[in-house]
Amino acid sequence: MLLPGERIDQLFADDIQIIQSKEVFSFSIDAVLLANFPSFPKNGKIVDLCAGNGAVGLFASRKTKAQIIQIELQHRLADMGKRSIQLNQLAEQMTMFELGLKNATSVVKPDSVDLVLCNPPYFKELPTSQKNPNPHLAIARHEIHTTLTEVIDVSAKLLKTTGRLAMVHRPDRFLDILHAMESANIAPKRVRFVYPKVGKEANTLLIEGIKQGKKDGFRVLPPLFTYDEQNNYLPEMKAMLYGD
Amino acid sequence: MLLPGERIDQLFADDIQIIQSKEVFSFSIDAVLLANFPSFPKNGKIVDLCAGNGAVGLFASRKTKAQIIQIELQHRLADMGKRSIQLNQLAEQMTMFELGLKNATSVVKPDSVDLVLCNPPYFKELPTSQKNPNPHLAIARHEIHTTLTEVIDVSAKLLKTTGRLAMVHRPDRFLDILHAMESANIAPKRVRFVYPKVGKEANTLLIEGIKQGKKDGFRVLPPLFTYDEQNNYLPEMKAMLYGD
Repeated sequence: MLLPGERIDQLFADDIQIIQSKEVFSFSIDAVLLANFPSFPKNGKIVDLCAGNGAVGLFASRKTKAQIIQIELQHRLADMGKRSIQLNQLAEQMTMFELGLKNATSVVKPDSVDLVLCNPPYFKELPTSQKNPNPHLAIARHEIHTTLTEVIDVSAKLLKTTGRLAMVHRPDRFLDILHAMESANIAPKRVRFVYPKVGKEANTLLIEGIKQGKKDGFRVLPPLFTYDEQNNYLPEMKAMLYGD
Repeated sequence: MLLPGERIDQLFADDIQIIQSKEVFSFSIDAVLLANFPSFPKNGKIVDLCAGNGAVGLFASRKTKAQIIQIELQHRLADMGKRSIQLNQLAEQMTMFELGLKNATSVVKPDSVDLVLCNPPYFKELPTSQKNPNPHLAIARHEIHTTLTEVIDVSAKLLKTTGRLAMVHRPDRFLDILHAMESANIAPKRVRFVYPKVGKEANTLLIEGIKQGKKDGFRVLPPLFTYDEQNNYLPEMKAMLYGD
């Protein structure tokens, strides 16, 4: 079941096993944050875009009975994700498609999705960008094969009216995210900033928007801190990783 | 020096005395937050828009040698502000003008200001708005005589290139603020969210933008908490009010 260099990691909080590989892709804490952010529909349809090795959708499976469709461009990552679905016996609830975002509507009906989850590449692709020489990691981190605008436009196409997009990203792209959401007629509704420690600037944000939602009522949720002064996970973070 | 109903309050942290009146206007904690937010120019020119009884500019006088020009529409408030300037012997540094925002350029040269401070009315003026029956308070709190867009457009006119606008407002107007800043060619650069307590949503935001600034590099500063679990001010807040 495992290819060379792969290992099985466990997210204890959700009792999920994940196939990953240092050389190709490992999920980050951001995947855990995203899977704990939205209020999940009980049933219906969830799409996990830029799914990587499938971590976000796998964690989400513990929080909902909705069908979870995962879309990932990279063969090696999508393949790990498919095997993790089997490993966790989730084949009835989850499907991984190896597919570029442009072709998402070939497997998901437009205007049909209740919730899109997305942990996209964070970094703009600029001539000056320092990229990881490992192409798997470079593609996952940099906007090489997709952009923030495309991710949000595709989400808007897939979502039903009042369906929600939940995304994890970096604060320095916050204004870009707002612009792209508004252009796609997704109303930004809630943001939660994640600060590494008390007294530090935010390094991560979680944002939720509603397709064709009202433009008022924007809320800034309680802050989340990752570490205490001794670099130990704080209780909320610990609960997401190891359970209560 | 005092009219009926007026009293002199003191901000101990800055050793400033302020004439105010329950019936007309008293400064709020938001004025203190705003006066402690920007990095002040050492010299040059600062404008305090929607100055009320002058609290923000009076606190700011302790942090800079810049000239401080205050603009307030309401006669009773501007009059209290003028007397507070005298009371604190700040007439060489500060001037209060009783003036609507539309006429700000009649007393301040366009493209000449280093820093605009503004604690504007927070609430949209809607047919359904519940307003304070006291007109002084209603005008200070609701967008009756000015709007967010006008405040930001006037700021843009007054500021020199790379001059900064620092504003205090409510998180539910955050998207409106960003739109208005961008329309006025003020690049939002830094935001700080103020949360009443740990675990609560933000109820206040401080935002700084730069006229004709670059559009990248947006930062979310460390969060500020107002109260501890026993409703006592936390140290940072206490220092702003009572000094270190």
